[in-house]
Amino acid sequence: MQSIGVGLIGTGYMGKCHALAWNGVKPVFGDGPRPRLVHLAEIDADLAARRAAEFGFERATANWRDVVADPEVEVVSITTPNALHAEMALAALAAGKHVWCEKPMAVTLADAERMAAAARAAGRVAALGYNYIQNPLIRHIGALLAAGTIGVVNHVRFEMDEDFMADPEAPFSWKSDAASGYGAPDDFGVHPLSLIAVLFGGVARVMAQLAKPYADRPLAGGGRRAVATFDSACVLMELRNGATGIMALNRAAWGRKGRLAFQIFGSGGTIAYDQERMNEFQLFTASGDPAEQGFRTVLTGPVHPPYERFIPAPGHGLGFNDLKLIECHELLNAVAGRPARIIDFAAGLGIERAVHAIVRSHREASWFDV
Amino acid sequence: MQSIGVGLIGTGYMGKCHALAWNGVKPVFGDGPRPRLVHLAEIDADLAARRAAEFGFERATANWRDVVADPEVEVVSITTPNALHAEMALAALAAGKHVWCEKPMAVTLADAERMAAAARAAGRVAALGYNYIQNPLIRHIGALLAAGTIGVVNHVRFEMDEDFMADPEAPFSWKSDAASGYGAPDDFGVHPLSLIAVLFGGVARVMAQLAKPYADRPLAGGGRRAVATFDSACVLMELRNGATGIMALNRAAWGRKGRLAFQIFGSGGTIAYDQERMNEFQLFTASGDPAEQGFRTVLTGPVHPPYERFIPAPGHGLGFNDLKLIECHELLNAVAGRPARIIDFAAGLGIERAVHAIVRSHREASWFDV
Amino acid sequence: MQSIGVGLIGTGYMGKCHALAWNGVKPVFGDGPRPRLVHLAEIDADLAARRAAEFGFERATANWRDVVADPEVEVVSITTPNALHAEMALAALAAGKHVWCEKPMAVTLADAERMAAAARAAGRVAALGYNYIQNPLIRHIGALLAAGTIGVVNHVRFEMDEDFMADPEAPFSWKSDAASGYGAPDDFGVHPLSLIAVLFGGVARVMAQLAKPYADRPLAGGGRRAVATFDSACVLMELRNGATGIMALNRAAWGRKGRLAFQIFGSGGTIAYDQERMNEFQLFTASGDPAEQGFRTVLTGPVHPPYERFIPAPGHGLGFNDLKLIECHELLNAVAGRPARIIDFAAGLGIERAVHAIVRSHREASWFDV
Amino acid sequence: MQSIGVGLIGTGYMGKCHALAWNGVKPVFGDGPRPRLVHLAEIDADLAARRAAEFGFERATANWRDVVADPEVEVVSITTPNALHAEMALAALAAGKHVWCEKPMAVTLADAERMAAAARAAGRVAALGYNYIQNPLIRHIGALLAAGTIGVVNHVRFEMDEDFMADPEAPFSWKSDAASGYGAPDDFGVHPLSLIAVLFGGVARVMAQLAKPYADRPLAGGGRRAVATFDSACVLMELRNGATGIMALNRAAWGRKGRLAFQIFGSGGTIAYDQERMNEFQLFTASGDPAEQGFRTVLTGPVHPPYERFIPAPGHGLGFNDLKLIECHELLNAVAGRPARIIDFAAGLGIERAVHAIVRSHREASWFDV
Repeated sequence: MQSIGVGLIGTGYMGKCHALAWNGVKPVFGDGPRPRLVHLAEIDADLAARRAAEFGFERATANWRDVVADPEVEVVSITTPNALHAEMALAALAAGKHVWCEKPMAVTLADAERMAAAARAAGRVAALGYNYIQNPLIRHIGALLAAGTIGVVNHVRFEMDEDFMADPEAPFSWKSDAASGYGAPDDFGVHPLSLIAVLFGGVARVMAQLAKPYADRPLAGGGRRAVATFDSACVLMELRNGATGIMALNRAAWGRKGRLAFQIFGSGGTIAYDQERMNEFQLFTASGDPAEQGFRTVLTGPVHPPYERFIPAPGHGLGFNDLKLIECHELLNAVAGRPARIIDFAAGLGIERAVHAIVRSHREASWFDV
Repeated sequence: MQSIGVGLIGTGYMGKCHALAWNGVKPVFGDGPRPRLVHLAEIDADLAARRAAEFGFERATANWRDVVADPEVEVVSITTPNALHAEMALAALAAGKHVWCEKPMAVTLADAERMAAAARAAGRVAALGYNYIQNPLIRHIGALLAAGTIGVVNHVRFEMDEDFMADPEAPFSWKSDAASGYGAPDDFGVHPLSLIAVLFGGVARVMAQLAKPYADRPLAGGGRRAVATFDSACVLMELRNGATGIMALNRAAWGRKGRLAFQIFGSGGTIAYDQERMNEFQLFTASGDPAEQGFRTVLTGPVHPPYERFIPAPGHGLGFNDLKLIECHELLNAVAGRPARIIDFAAGLGIERAVHAIVRSHREASWFDV
Repeated sequence: MQSIGVGLIGTGYMGKCHALAWNGVKPVFGDGPRPRLVHLAEIDADLAARRAAEFGFERATANWRDVVADPEVEVVSITTPNALHAEMALAALAAGKHVWCEKPMAVTLADAERMAAAARAAGRVAALGYNYIQNPLIRHIGALLAAGTIGVVNHVRFEMDEDFMADPEAPFSWKSDAASGYGAPDDFGVHPLSLIAVLFGGVARVMAQLAKPYADRPLAGGGRRAVATFDSACVLMELRNGATGIMALNRAAWGRKGRLAFQIFGSGGTIAYDQERMNEFQLFTASGDPAEQGFRTVLTGPVHPPYERFIPAPGHGLGFNDLKLIECHELLNAVAGRPARIIDFAAGLGIERAVHAIVRSHREASWFDV
Repeated sequence: MQSIGVGLIGTGYMGKCHALAWNGVKPVFGDGPRPRLVHLAEIDADLAARRAAEFGFERATANWRDVVADPEVEVVSITTPNALHAEMALAALAAGKHVWCEKPMAVTLADAERMAAAARAAGRVAALGYNYIQNPLIRHIGALLAAGTIGVVNHVRFEMDEDFMADPEAPFSWKSDAASGYGAPDDFGVHPLSLIAVLFGGVARVMAQLAKPYADRPLAGGGRRAVATFDSACVLMELRNGATGIMALNRAAWGRKGRLAFQIFGSGGTIAYDQERMNEFQLFTASGDPAEQGFRTVLTGPVHPPYERFIPAPGHGLGFNDLKLIECHELLNAVAGRPARIIDFAAGLGIERAVHAIVRSHREASWFDV
C-alpha cells in the first residue's frame, strides 16, 4: 500500500490534532503508506474550505456524509462533539471505512455497544483517540510492570485534574448540561481508565462519590442555571489484577492544566508519573545500598521507542501532539494487519462500562462491578 | 510559674522526641516556665538510668507508676506502645497530672472514650502528640483557608505513605498483629485526620476499602503467619465543611519515607503540601495575569510564626523534632491557661471515631457517619 | 505567494527536524505559503531517494549543488556538519536562494564573516537554526524583561549540559577532533549565547576557562588518542546591558540530557528556566504578602503565543520539534517581509564573535571584549 | 569528663543557635560530657540576664571579658559581629579556653593568621562555625566521592544565594559598609568554600568578578550613600584535585532564601544538592539499563549518620539548627581528643586565603593562586 485516503470530520481542537498527525506520520516514521488527505468536513462550508487549504486536504464539505461516502477515503477521523460520535462512526463503518474516533466513545452505553458491535461486524479497524497511552514513557512503564521491575502491583492512585471548570463565575456552558454526559467521569475519567486498561487490564469494581463544586452558574442573559454535571469525582477501585486504589478527578482544580498523574506501588518498588511533565517519570526500586536509594527521574530518550523516530538525542522533549502522531502510526499498523497499540471499540467499550459503573455506584452508594 | 516538673514514660522514638522538646522549649521560646526534668521511666532499670543521664532527668525508674506518683511531677509525657496509653493516661489524670500522650489515643474506642471522660473530669490539660499540625506552614495554610485566599474549599486529597512495611519478606512483627490495631487506618490515618480536624473541623462520613498487600509474612523460626492488619487504605470522605475528597494510606509504599501530602481545591485557588519537603508549600491563586499564574513554592520563614523563634533568616529549614518542640510549647500554653493549638483528648476522640468509622465502612461496604 | 519551493541538504538529526517543520508549518499556523518540498540532497543517492519518499520531497540527489541550482527551490535548509555550512550557504545565497542554516554558523570566524557579508549583499533571508529562542516561554520571558516585571537585571547564570561526551571510555570521535571546532564553546555555547542575544542584546566581554575532562580516548583499532577539544567551559561574562554573570558548559555532564538552564536576577524579581522541563518556567516577584511569596511554576498555554496554534488547552506540552516548526514559521515571515524573530547571519556573527572571544580569553587568561 | 563548662559571647542569630546546640547535644547524642552553661555575655546587662534565664546559663555579664576570665568556663562560643572575632578568640585562647567561633574567621587576613597561630600555640581546640558541612547528606556525599561512586570529579559548580540585600530601596546598613568586609565573597563565599574544603581539599586558584547590583542605597535621614561592598560575585576556580568550576554568589537574589547549591560532575556520575531542600540530594550514576537511568532523589535517613541520633525513621527531616548541634558534638569530640569533623583555625585560614585571593583576582583581573 503506497498511500491511504484520509477523511476528517471536525477541525477544532482534536480535528487539527488529527490533521497534524496525518501530515507528520510519514516523515516521522518513514514506514507505511503516505496519507493522502482527501476530504474534510466542517459545519460551515467556508471554514471547511479554509481548513482544507491549511491542513492540505483536497476537498472540503459542510456535509460530513460526503466524507463517509467518498470512495477515495479509506479511513475517517471523527473529531466532533461526543454526542455525534456514534452516528458518524456507524455510518463510516457501514461504508467500509476504517475509523479513528475521538474519546469518549459515546454519551450512552447503548451507543457504545452499538459501535463495538458494528466494528466487529465490519471487520475494519475502529480505534479511539486515547493518545496518553502512546507516550513512550507509558509504554516503558508497561514494560517495567510486565518485567516485574517493581514486583507485584498492589495499590494504585490515579488523578486527573484541569481547571477549565474552576471559575465559579464562568458562564453556564454545554459542559454543565446533562446532554454532554456525566462530567468528570466520562470527560476525564476515560483518560486514567485508558491507562489502567493498557497497564492493568482494566477495573473490576468501583465505588464512587461524584460532586458538583458549584451548584449553579450565571447565564449570559442574567440569572443562574443549575449545573447538571459532576465536575469532580472520587472513586475507590479494585483492578482486574487484584490491586486496590483510588481515582480522583477534578475539572475545577485551579492551577492544574493537564495533570494526569499516577502512582503505582508494588512489592519491589514504586512508579510515579505526571502528564504535566510528560517527558519524565519517577522510578523507585528497593535495590542497591539503602543509603543511595531514591526516586529516579528518568527523562525520555531514544531508548524509549518510538521517541527515537522524533529526535535522536535524549531529554529534548516530545509534545502532546507527538502522542497523537504516534497513535496515528499505530492505527496504520492496525490497518496493515500488524500488531498495534490501540484502544479499539471493543476495548473502548470496557472503558465506557467502567464510566457507567462509576456513575451507578455513586447513585446507589455501593460497590458496582464493571 | 517559674518551672514545671516533668515526667517521661518511655524513651524510644517518641520518648526521645519528647525529651528533646522538654530540653529545648525554654531556650527556643524564651517564655513560660523552665521545665524541670524530674522523673523518667523505662522498662529496664539500667536503660532508664542511662536515659535519665542523657536526657537530663533527675530520677529514673523501671516502674512507670513511680513517675505518676511523684509529687514533683506536674506533667507526664506518655510515649509507650499504643496499647498502654489508656491505663497510663488515666492514672496520670487521676493523680492530678497534666498529660501529653502520643497518638493514637488508644487501641479501642471504649478506651479513648474513657480517656476523654477522665480528662474532662480531671480538669487538667490532656494533649495528644499530633505534631504535624504544629508546622508553621500548616498554621499558615489554616490562616489562608480562614481568610478565603483560595475561596470556598470543595475538594481535598490526603495521602500518607511510608515504606516500613513494604518489604514482603520482612519478618512478621507486632505491626502485623491484630493486637496493634487496624494498621494503616489508626497507625497512619490519624495524621491526616489531625490535619483535617484543625483545617476543616473534621470528617462527617466515610467509605473505605482496606487492603493487605501481603497476605502473610515469614516467621523468624520458619513458616509464615497470616497478616492481620491492613497496610493500605483508600477512603472516600465528606468533610464537615461539605467538601468531598479522598484519603489514601499506605505503609507499604516503597520509596516514601514520610509523605504526608495533601491537595486542597477551592473556588479561588489550590494549596498543596508534602511533609517530605516540610519547609515549603504550594499555593495557586486565580489572580493576576493568566500568563504569569502558577503554583508558588513558598519557603517557611520568620513571617510564618513561630519559625522566627528558631531562626531569624527565612528558608533555612525546620526539622521534624522542631515540630514536637512547638507542640510542647503549646502544651505549656494550655497549662498556663492561654490559648493553645493542641488536639486534646476531646478532639482526639473525634479522630478515633473517624478511624473506627473507616474500619466499619470497610466491613459493611457502605458509607458510615463519623 | 501561494507556495514556496524548498530544498533540503542533509537528512540526519537536524535534516529530519527541518523536514518535519516544512511538513507541519502550514497545518499548524494556517497562514503563509504552502511549502512545496522540491529537492533533497543526501550524500548517498539511495538514502537520498528513501528520505525524499519519507519526507515528501519530489526530487532527490547525492549532489547538494543540484539543490542549490534547482530553479524551483526558493529556500534551502542546510543541515550538514558544521564544516560544510559556509560553502553551502555561500553557494545558495549566490544562487539567489533564501537560506536556513543550522548552528553554529561556521567553524572559523573568517567563514562566518564571509557568510554574513554574502547575506547582506544578496538581500535574501539568511537565518540560523537557534530554535531554543522560539519557545513561547522564552518569548514570554523576553516580554517580562522588557516590561520590567523583575526590575533591572543585574546578574545572570546560564548553564548548558548534556552527557554525550561523558563516558571516558567512549571511542575517540570527530567531536574530539580539532577539525570539529573548539568543543563546548561553539557546540554548546552558541545556545545560551543565542538566548543572551535575544534577551539582553548580547555579551560585552568574557573571561573563560576551558577544560578537557578526559585527556585522551580509546581508538577503535587500539591505543588512545589525545582529545583536542574542550568538553567543558566556565565563563565570566559582562552583558551589553551591564549585568554580570557566569556561563557554564559541559558536554560530559552525566545525567543531563538537554539542560539549557538559566537564572536571571533583577532588582524586583528572579526568573529561572530549564530546557529539560521546557514547558514551564519559574518566576519570583517581590510583591504581595511576604508570607505567600515564592517561585511560581508557570506552565505554557495559549496565553503564551504561538502555543495556541498547536494546542488550545494549557499545560499540555510542546516538544522540541515544535520549536523548530515555530522557527520555520518565523523564517517564512522574514521571507514575506514581515517582522520575524530570527537570528540572521548578522546576529549570528555576533554569537560567533563571542565564541571566539571565549576561546581567546582562555588562551590569554584575561578578559576579552566581544 | 562528666561535664564541660560553657561560655557564650553574643546571643543574636548565631548566639541562640549555639545556645540551642549546647542544650540539646547531650540528649541527642547521649555520649560525651554534659555541657554546664556557666556564663553568658551580651552587650546590654538586662538583655544578658534575660538571655541567661532563657538559655539556661548560670551567670550573665555585659562584659565579654568576664566570660573569658571565668575559671569555670572551659569552652567559649564566640558569636559576635565578624569584626570582633579576632580579639575575642585571641583572648579566649590566651586564657586557655577552647574556642568555637562563628564564621567568617575575621575581617582581615592578618587577623585570621594571628588567630591560627594563637590556636596552634595554645594547643586548644579552635573550631569555626561552618555548620553546612555537618549535614549528614554532605558527609555521605563526601563518602560517595571518596568511594569513587561518581568516578573522578572533573567539574563543579557552587552557588550561594539569598535575598536579604535584594531590595534596592532597603536602607543603607552595615552590610553595605566597607568595615563589614567585602560582601558576598566573605559573607557568603566562605560557605561554599567550606564545602569545597571538606569535599575536595580546597581551591588552588581563582579568577573573580565582583559586582554591586545597586550603586547606592537610601539613608534613613534622607539622601543616598554609595554601597562599598559587593553583593554578587562570579568566580572561576581550579580545585586542588584538578577539577575546574565556577562559584556564583548573590546576596541580592530575589526569592532565594538559603540556596547553597552545588553540582559535582565526575567520570561516572553526577551529584547535586540544594540547601533549601537540605534533606535530600540528587545522585546520577552511569550504571544499569540506560532506559531506567536518572537522577535519584535520596532522602536523609538513619543510614546517613548521625541522622539516627535525631530520628529513627527516614525522611522525617532535620533542620538548620540540628546541623549546629552536630557541629557542637564534633567540637566536643575534638576536645576529647577523638577524631572530629571540624574546620579548625588552620583549615579556616585556608578558606580566608581563598576569599582574599578572590578579591585580589577581581582587582587585578587575573588568576590568583590561593
